[in-house]
Amino acid sequence: VDIDPGKVGKSIRELLNDPKAPGLRVVNSLAELRQKPDLVFHTAVSSFKTAYPQLAALAHRGINVVSSCEELIYPRLRSPRLASQLDRICRQGRSRIVAAGVNPGFVMDLLPICLATATQNLDAIHVERVVNASTRRESLQRKIGSGMEPGRFTQLLKSGRAGHAGLKESLALLAHGLGLRAPKIRESSNAVIARTRIRTKYFTVHKGQTCGLHQRVEARPNRRLHLTLDLKMYLGADDAHDAIRIEGCPPVEMRLSGGVAGDQATVAALLNAAPRLLQVEPGLRLLTELPLA
Amino acid sequence: VDIDPGKVGKSIRELLNDPKAPGLRVVNSLAELRQKPDLVFHTAVSSFKTAYPQLAALAHRGINVVSSCEELIYPRLRSPRLASQLDRICRQGRSRIVAAGVNPGFVMDLLPICLATATQNLDAIHVERVVNASTRRESLQRKIGSGMEPGRFTQLLKSGRAGHAGLKESLALLAHGLGLRAPKIRESSNAVIARTRIRTKYFTVHKGQTCGLHQRVEARPNRRLHLTLDLKMYLGADDAHDAIRIEGCPPVEMRLSGGVAGDQATVAALLNAAPRLLQVEPGLRLLTELPLA
Repeated sequence: VDIDPGKVGKSIRELLNDPKAPGLRVVNSLAELRQKPDLVFHTAVSSFKTAYPQLAALAHRGINVVSSCEELIYPRLRSPRLASQLDRICRQGRSRIVAAGVNPGFVMDLLPICLATATQNLDAIHVERVVNASTRRESLQRKIGSGMEPGRFTQLLKSGRAGHAGLKESLALLAHGLGLRAPKIRESSNAVIARTRIRTKYFTVHKGQTCGLHQRVEARPNRRLHLTLDLKMYLGADDAHDAIRIEGCPPVEMRLSGGVAGDQATVAALLNAAPRLLQVEPGLRLLTELPLA
Repeated sequence: VDIDPGKVGKSIRELLNDPKAPGLRVVNSLAELRQKPDLVFHTAVSSFKTAYPQLAALAHRGINVVSSCEELIYPRLRSPRLASQLDRICRQGRSRIVAAGVNPGFVMDLLPICLATATQNLDAIHVERVVNASTRRESLQRKIGSGMEPGRFTQLLKSGRAGHAGLKESLALLAHGLGLRAPKIRESSNAVIARTRIRTKYFTVHKGQTCGLHQRVEARPNRRLHLTLDLKMYLGADDAHDAIRIEGCPPVEMRLSGGVAGDQATVAALLNAAPRLLQVEPGLRLLTELPLA
């Protein structure tokens, strides 16, 4: 299902230019599907509010959904009422909905929750992700402000019209996974500025222009525990990695060298969530509620 | 509950020599408990067969159990019939049983399963754990053959009378977590030999004597996938770490510097499994069936 007129009516085989791909044709609305699918991979928008009518229509028809919608990783954070409403529709329609992904959905939330199962008396969890945006798709390079005047991009970031979606939701899910709530999440975001000229397949960024973003969220869910998620995505980052540091008993220090490759890993995370989702009761679910296996 | 006559009748406060500890007294059988506990932490033996009567008695009374029994991490591997029987007793008694721990239970099974949720088209998962046994408790230093003549210790290892319990079970759980079975698991084990004299708080090991063990299991659950778990535990290991390497799309390379500290992390893993166990239906459960949160 796609609303792009350039795709509607064409077969997946044709669109992918792959003779092994299925011959199914793209339709432009759910109503046109001839059979009710068991499960839909929903990869459309980042905002939960925008996704809501699409998800509600699927849930109403009893279709299970794995979605890449970033804010859906912890939908109660921004829209508790819509989340309750969607959960009710899911239960009535006997469908299950969950969001999955890499960031949010894995590196900065699910993985630290998993690591935290082997430690206690937590004082802090610090997650750091550095992404070399030069290796990523065009839309991501655009999203991080490549080539923009830094003052203008910083303004867009502060007003929420640019930036990486779902970072606050990651923190809320992390707190939830530890059995806590994070009612006050502080966020800061800034442009990363090119120190030399950077050329990618899609952009040329001059010295002094924006080459990426630095976003950071933090919370103190209780008097003791400090949670921080620090995300840098910029062109030419030469130390790409994911790191998780837990201060607890025992302390844990994890590093994923190179970092989890976002585009490929997101596809994998969505696919792998599907059989796990089918094992839980109908409803709007969080990733942490699915069995791992 | 403890069978040690040196503990029975004494209070936990007395035994721990800690005025803040509870004043409850140790009894020497389940029947002597005045109240039915909601949940028991069972930390008694490594063999599932030996643990079985203890676990069955708890399940029969409707008591939930988190156990450190290594073979219980994947009980069907050695004793499928006993596992089915225990599962039946759990369902009848409305109790839940799960095994948890660090190794098995985390580093070489649960954590690679978690990492694998962000990758697909798997070719291999290789897990390596190097433990500096000098930092561990006396019983562990004894278990790894410290000070023994290498030929004799190797014999004990090969005959299954010495060595680290649960490594094959870790591999079976890992395969299960990927939706596969590993019917043929190959295991090799060898003594690690001291190159110089090593002194710990408990042992003095001379050059040429055993200072630890090297155990390795591997399996090919299908034509493509290769799984290996490589465990070294020896005195004076100066490169203690845990590493997980996944060959897939995308590849993943994880390192826990220093490695997860076994003794403390095992306590944490047992405690953290309890609230998660109470969320699932009665039965004999695998760790991968519990929600992470």
